[in-house]
Amino acid sequence: MTTEKPISRYPVPQLADLPQDIRERILAVQEKSGFIPNVFLVLAHRPDEFRAFFAYYDAIMLKDSGLSKAEREMIVVATSAANDCHYCVVAHGAILRIYAKDALIADQIAVNYRQADITPRQRVMLDFAVKMAQRPQEIDEEDFVRLQAQGFSDEDIWDIGSIAAFFALSNRMAHLTAMRPNAAFYAMGRGA
Amino acid sequence: MTTEKPISRYPVPQLADLPQDIRERILAVQEKSGFIPNVFLVLAHRPDEFRAFFAYYDAIMLKDSGLSKAEREMIVVATSAANDCHYCVVAHGAILRIYAKDALIADQIAVNYRQADITPRQRVMLDFAVKMAQRPQEIDEEDFVRLQAQGFSDEDIWDIGSIAAFFALSNRMAHLTAMRPNAAFYAMGRGA
Amino acid sequence: MTTEKPISRYPVPQLADLPQDIRERILAVQEKSGFIPNVFLVLAHRPDEFRAFFAYYDAIMLKDSGLSKAEREMIVVATSAANDCHYCVVAHGAILRIYAKDALIADQIAVNYRQADITPRQRVMLDFAVKMAQRPQEIDEEDFVRLQAQGFSDEDIWDIGSIAAFFALSNRMAHLTAMRPNAAFYAMGRGA
Amino acid sequence: MTTEKPISRYPVPQLADLPQDIRERILAVQEKSGFIPNVFLVLAHRPDEFRAFFAYYDAIMLKDSGLSKAEREMIVVATSAANDCHYCVVAHGAILRIYAKDALIADQIAVNYRQADITPRQRVMLDFAVKMAQRPQEIDEEDFVRLQAQGFSDEDIWDIGSIAAFFALSNRMAHLTAMRPNAAFYAMGRGA
Amino acid sequence: MTTEKPISRYPVPQLADLPQDIRERILAVQEKSGFIPNVFLVLAHRPDEFRAFFAYYDAIMLKDSGLSKAEREMIVVATSAANDCHYCVVAHGAILRIYAKDALIADQIAVNYRQADITPRQRVMLDFAVKMAQRPQEIDEEDFVRLQAQGFSDEDIWDIGSIAAFFALSNRMAHLTAMRPNAAFYAMGRGA
Amino acid sequence: MTTEKPISRYPVPQLADLPQDIRERILAVQEKSGFIPNVFLVLAHRPDEFRAFFAYYDAIMLKDSGLSKAEREMIVVATSAANDCHYCVVAHGAILRIYAKDALIADQIAVNYRQADITPRQRVMLDFAVKMAQRPQEIDEEDFVRLQAQGFSDEDIWDIGSIAAFFALSNRMAHLTAMRPNAAFYAMGRGA
Repeated sequence: MTTEKPISRYPVPQLADLPQDIRERILAVQEKSGFIPNVFLVLAHRPDEFRAFFAYYDAIMLKDSGLSKAEREMIVVATSAANDCHYCVVAHGAILRIYAKDALIADQIAVNYRQADITPRQRVMLDFAVKMAQRPQEIDEEDFVRLQAQGFSDEDIWDIGSIAAFFALSNRMAHLTAMRPNAAFYAMGRGA
Repeated sequence: MTTEKPISRYPVPQLADLPQDIRERILAVQEKSGFIPNVFLVLAHRPDEFRAFFAYYDAIMLKDSGLSKAEREMIVVATSAANDCHYCVVAHGAILRIYAKDALIADQIAVNYRQADITPRQRVMLDFAVKMAQRPQEIDEEDFVRLQAQGFSDEDIWDIGSIAAFFALSNRMAHLTAMRPNAAFYAMGRGA
Repeated sequence: MTTEKPISRYPVPQLADLPQDIRERILAVQEKSGFIPNVFLVLAHRPDEFRAFFAYYDAIMLKDSGLSKAEREMIVVATSAANDCHYCVVAHGAILRIYAKDALIADQIAVNYRQADITPRQRVMLDFAVKMAQRPQEIDEEDFVRLQAQGFSDEDIWDIGSIAAFFALSNRMAHLTAMRPNAAFYAMGRGA
Repeated sequence: MTTEKPISRYPVPQLADLPQDIRERILAVQEKSGFIPNVFLVLAHRPDEFRAFFAYYDAIMLKDSGLSKAEREMIVVATSAANDCHYCVVAHGAILRIYAKDALIADQIAVNYRQADITPRQRVMLDFAVKMAQRPQEIDEEDFVRLQAQGFSDEDIWDIGSIAAFFALSNRMAHLTAMRPNAAFYAMGRGA
Repeated sequence: MTTEKPISRYPVPQLADLPQDIRERILAVQEKSGFIPNVFLVLAHRPDEFRAFFAYYDAIMLKDSGLSKAEREMIVVATSAANDCHYCVVAHGAILRIYAKDALIADQIAVNYRQADITPRQRVMLDFAVKMAQRPQEIDEEDFVRLQAQGFSDEDIWDIGSIAAFFALSNRMAHLTAMRPNAAFYAMGRGA
Repeated sequence: MTTEKPISRYPVPQLADLPQDIRERILAVQEKSGFIPNVFLVLAHRPDEFRAFFAYYDAIMLKDSGLSKAEREMIVVATSAANDCHYCVVAHGAILRIYAKDALIADQIAVNYRQADITPRQRVMLDFAVKMAQRPQEIDEEDFVRLQAQGFSDEDIWDIGSIAAFFALSNRMAHLTAMRPNAAFYAMGRGA
């Protein structure tokens, strides 16, 4: 009995049927990564939402920031784990391993970031990110003070908060569509 | 002692200092509404995120849908209330009163949508939206069956889920910035 | 399709059928307010409970206190919101707007008292009241110390606690009976 | 080192200093029970609240009802245990043992009513009472249907709900005052 | 109608059918206590698990420790109450009363250890034990600092943690089997 | 700055200093696995507890069962993930990949077993195991009926429950000691 699930609860468009800008973005990713991450195909079911989603992603994940690229992926993995998001933990766990050049860090953060091999500054960053994910209504000045004491500027704090907020959306779209990560992600960045 | 809080924890840009496309969007809103809702000024602190945010908003809130405009605002109010989001409950409560031509519905849904004057179909819609807000990891086929039994198509369900997901982001940005609603929203649509 | 719900799950007595003391109390309220708040009619289904309920209410809400009348209503609104109580948030929200002469304060407290335009002293008062509503078993000396540091006497603290305790009862009776607020409350005190 | 705590965080009045009606009520209880349950002394600190409290108690606990006296005490013990209320579990546990003529039932219900030696009808009654204590905002028609299927009338359901609501108040006053049960209650009704 | 439940959901072996080492252990307990606590009969359904279970129990409950025997039973009662475990609260409540020579302490800890007549040191011990029971993933160095400040050595902390961990298992086996305590436990140690 | 944490908060014994039976067990594991899993070294700090722990482990994990070895490891991974247990998720995730000959299954179950590639029967098994981990006090006959409907015998259900109960203990010992998994586990069984 096979139990492998499809990559989406919704119809998945063919590349050929997509608007040109979306097809081009997807082909560019494929060329760079060697495969098409399923999130592109699943969300392409709604072209306008696709465009806004990836514009948002670019705006927070590609910008200059006081956070390193690895730190931004730590936020994605920690908050996606808090939301039990299969796609995001697996896909961004792979990216985190690569950016951090560390084969262990993604699983550590996904299971329990409090026990991961991170700096005290990163611990405070993830405490805030997970609070943004789970109890955002309790954010107050004390959180800002705690982050500032670790050297984060107010713009850095916006970056942390904005990534956590965007993946609150992203995790929910993954749950809505039962989005399935590509098998390729599981093993990336684990090795020699 | 005055205790009135500012509209954002972050610097709020002057209209004159904003990129032209953003300034024009804001002026168009002002012309239509008679005032500038604070969310536009608060998020303009980050122009790229501003553009993606409102592109996403337009993609889900302005599109043709099996959901009426009032129903979409019900989803916003119910999920924003689940997240205790001051800005979104007050601002979208006002919009809901206007779309629904009902002075009571927004407060009813904000306090406890289970006791609001809504149809059984709308009750199932809001049960799903609030689950998307609070326990998205438990979404499964039974939720789809329950919605389909009320006549919602799979595309309608995407709409419900997508609005709930977007406001998961939006509520968190409001909490991050301590975004304050304009006083004008409180009284809109309440009266004679 | 009308979806407006009745004011109670239980039979609602006619004024003429009520014991004289209860009828007189209700008529006095009607004369003062211009209408009969539904809580009087709904609870009159059980005269003995009605008498005890309003005797308790008078004992804590009308007494001299270190808390202003507006502050007492803040406690009612904050704890009733914590319990998602449709009747109490709407009815006491109206009373709070009137006592505080503030059109915005009730909605602010109902959605998220942490973001409301209140003083630091009122913030500590509401933190305690909401703890009484949600986690009373964790009340300890530190809570008293925190309140005393804001100038609250032990008798003031009893007042806060007693109001929160009484509305724990009141909210539950409203949920039991599916008590519906009068439409008149929604717009009261919202301004010119 | 003695660690025994006082019976209240607040001053406890002398009998001689109390208003006559309150003193008489307390003396009557003492004559009947052989001792004065601490709740009378602790709440007598506020005479008006005392009168309303016991008037409410009498109205729901002494009335004719489709619930037996033992069943009413089961509701008190189960909901007070859900609220971790030291005074109410110990004092009403004693009363339950006596009414039920069962030395074991109170501890069973206090620890986990789902495993207690009760009838299926009593199980449904306690499920509802504990829901009233913990999640009253989710009470809906299905709860009524479930109770009616066990033979409870709507008036019986009011009784269950009203007892649970009153002890929501009572438990909170006990937590506010750190009310301590008389040592006599622990052993009552346990024996040969 | 009798509603008394059996001592286990599973078959309960006859003493004569048990392996000799298990039978001898049980007979030794019976000789010492005057009756066979049901946990021995219920778990004997699986001899290998029985042997490991009681070897573990002996290793943590009979060893020399910086914790008194009464303190160890306090941990058992507090964590078992947190898990609503009928068998363990009743049986170990009895043992605690006997070790502590205190008729009231077990019920106090079972209902709300925060209000029990215990020392500040014991309060910190139980705070940690209950955290081990409910939120062990949040254990961190601050917990160790708090315990050390009360004079607990690191080995004492292992003892507290290990007892809480073992009863996390034990409570769950009791829930799995619907294990029923012997009637004899309820009255033991309650005084003259 | 190195941030790698030690394998235990407690002293880790040298093999040479351990009692002979424990040293031999550890050497046997080392010979079979090629390395010593840290749990053996960390728990050897307490030889009597070590012996009982592994006797229990053997009694439930090595016995004949209606559950396959892979299914038993699924239970370990799902419940350890529910407890955010770094050691157990990583170490038993590795074992699960090997037993199941599936490089993806462990991460799927660790993040969200509801979305994993498992059979409906395994889904019901894990629902029960996670309930044992998180809400064991709510286990009732309906859970047994649901499991029996999938073909599980009562002895199989004991096996599921007993594994979940043992890892409730094991996860807590890992949290108490801040137990760190060997780096070797992360990559095991991930494929060619």
